[in-house]
Amino acid sequence: MRAPLFEAVPNFSEGKDATKISLITEAVRAISGVRILGLHSDPDHNRSVLTFAGGEDPMLAGAIALAKVCAAELDLASQSGEHPRMGVLDVLPFVPLEGATMDDAVRLAHRAGESLGTLGFPVFLYGSAATIPHRQSLPNIRRGGYEDVASRLEDPLWKPDYGPKTLDPRRGAVAVGARPVLVAFNAYLDTKDVEVARAVARRVRESGGGLPAVRALGFYVGGEAQVSMNLTDLEQTPISVALEAVRSAAADLGASVVSTELVGLAPLEAVLQTARYYLGLRELDAQHVLELRLSGPSDSRSL
Amino acid sequence: MRAPLFEAVPNFSEGKDATKISLITEAVRAISGVRILGLHSDPDHNRSVLTFAGGEDPMLAGAIALAKVCAAELDLASQSGEHPRMGVLDVLPFVPLEGATMDDAVRLAHRAGESLGTLGFPVFLYGSAATIPHRQSLPNIRRGGYEDVASRLEDPLWKPDYGPKTLDPRRGAVAVGARPVLVAFNAYLDTKDVEVARAVARRVRESGGGLPAVRALGFYVGGEAQVSMNLTDLEQTPISVALEAVRSAAADLGASVVSTELVGLAPLEAVLQTARYYLGLRELDAQHVLELRLSGPSDSRSL
Repeated sequence: MRAPLFEAVPNFSEGKDATKISLITEAVRAISGVRILGLHSDPDHNRSVLTFAGGEDPMLAGAIALAKVCAAELDLASQSGEHPRMGVLDVLPFVPLEGATMDDAVRLAHRAGESLGTLGFPVFLYGSAATIPHRQSLPNIRRGGYEDVASRLEDPLWKPDYGPKTLDPRRGAVAVGARPVLVAFNAYLDTKDVEVARAVARRVRESGGGLPAVRALGFYVGGEAQVSMNLTDLEQTPISVALEAVRSAAADLGASVVSTELVGLAPLEAVLQTARYYLGLRELDAQHVLELRLSGPSDSRSL
Repeated sequence: MRAPLFEAVPNFSEGKDATKISLITEAVRAISGVRILGLHSDPDHNRSVLTFAGGEDPMLAGAIALAKVCAAELDLASQSGEHPRMGVLDVLPFVPLEGATMDDAVRLAHRAGESLGTLGFPVFLYGSAATIPHRQSLPNIRRGGYEDVASRLEDPLWKPDYGPKTLDPRRGAVAVGARPVLVAFNAYLDTKDVEVARAVARRVRESGGGLPAVRALGFYVGGEAQVSMNLTDLEQTPISVALEAVRSAAADLGASVVSTELVGLAPLEAVLQTARYYLGLRELDAQHVLELRLSGPSDSRSL
């Protein structure tokens, strides 16, 4: 049996400076046993999403290297961007992959949180790693953003799980969590009016009575209104259903979706589900895809 | 470098008798170096599509084993089915995969054709393996079907490439070819009227002035009208475009597509293209799919 495998999808608050982004990425890549799977930098959000995978100890070492280089290279006091954030290393979620359970990911999140606390970051544990129910939700933790985090740290309800209660204004605070695979999916509208994107986001997200397991915000990005979504449970709401809801809500406001993008990686099942949905396929799984059959487990007797 | 890899997608004229289908599949599976990738049996067409892959010599041995067991177990003189056919082993295409060129697949088709001729099958080479231009097209070779093949064999234009000029009526003739990856894709309509399916097929197929690299026929299968398509060049006409043409042609005739199916395997790119098309994704390739990044080639420096 292979060692349990984890994915981490940290968001850090730099999306413009290629030199700094590269320094940060390379610091993680240098850790033996860690594999970089993806990097998505957004200059408008001034934010990057890095995806890396590996076993528990390499992932912990990768998280520590990442936190150190973010603290060394970035300064949130002089940073600005569209996206809500509260720290240079803003969010650090761990996802259980092959051979790993959510409990394993929770343990890894606690170990990483403890280490980051020692480095001087106030750490809030979230998702399945949350120690208090009102901290399960990432938007709850991030509410008020960087500007409010110093005063929140003085509130007993928001005592950090690890690290100091006082804020280093350059680095801010970090949310470290454990969660299932999540798809970050953005839809661009044929309008420059960000209010349309915000209205669409309110209509489709769970907190507005919309689709389950959908978080959504409206932004103005690169001259276009963007509906930015996190799909936190693809079995409840797959990409196709989320997009059709956005298309429908946009149409009601006289707008339409001109293009979309995935931020970071999507699980294979999300792609297969999309094809099943739009083609009306009776079935389609990895067994029906030539390259996956060739690289997959040995000859199935069921065929 | 790994040995060139090939796929074979033989169609044989049995889609009902599970014992016979299993005997035929197991005869191929027994060949060392051959891997069974898929089996799709259709009782209405009374036809099965087997997909297997391997290096050149194992593929040749697999083809010979397949031809022998089809000749032993099946009898076309007493067989009936919806689909055009001319032999117990009806069509045997070879597809070049990793490390193989179309020329390699043509050589394999010739070797297999020669062996099947020695076994007593009249063999027509088709596709890229055709020796005469009018035999490139499989529908041309199969025109008139089993009922006409005995008389055709007497026509000098239809002298088989290998094997006898006289027909064993139990086994019929076989088309052996080399071709690129093909997607077999069926759409089921909300009508029992096969004429609607036939009219849709005529509208969308290349030979009727429709979409390039699309072959299509209308059938009545399992109580439903079915448009059965072969997409022979997905760069020219991907699945999404073919399906939208079918939906549009059906709508003009007051019908709609209720479901679809893939027969055999589809290449990964066909699935990714489908997701890109319907989601309006700016980009999506294997690099964006979590499982494929984890199993793929080592860390890319471009990230």
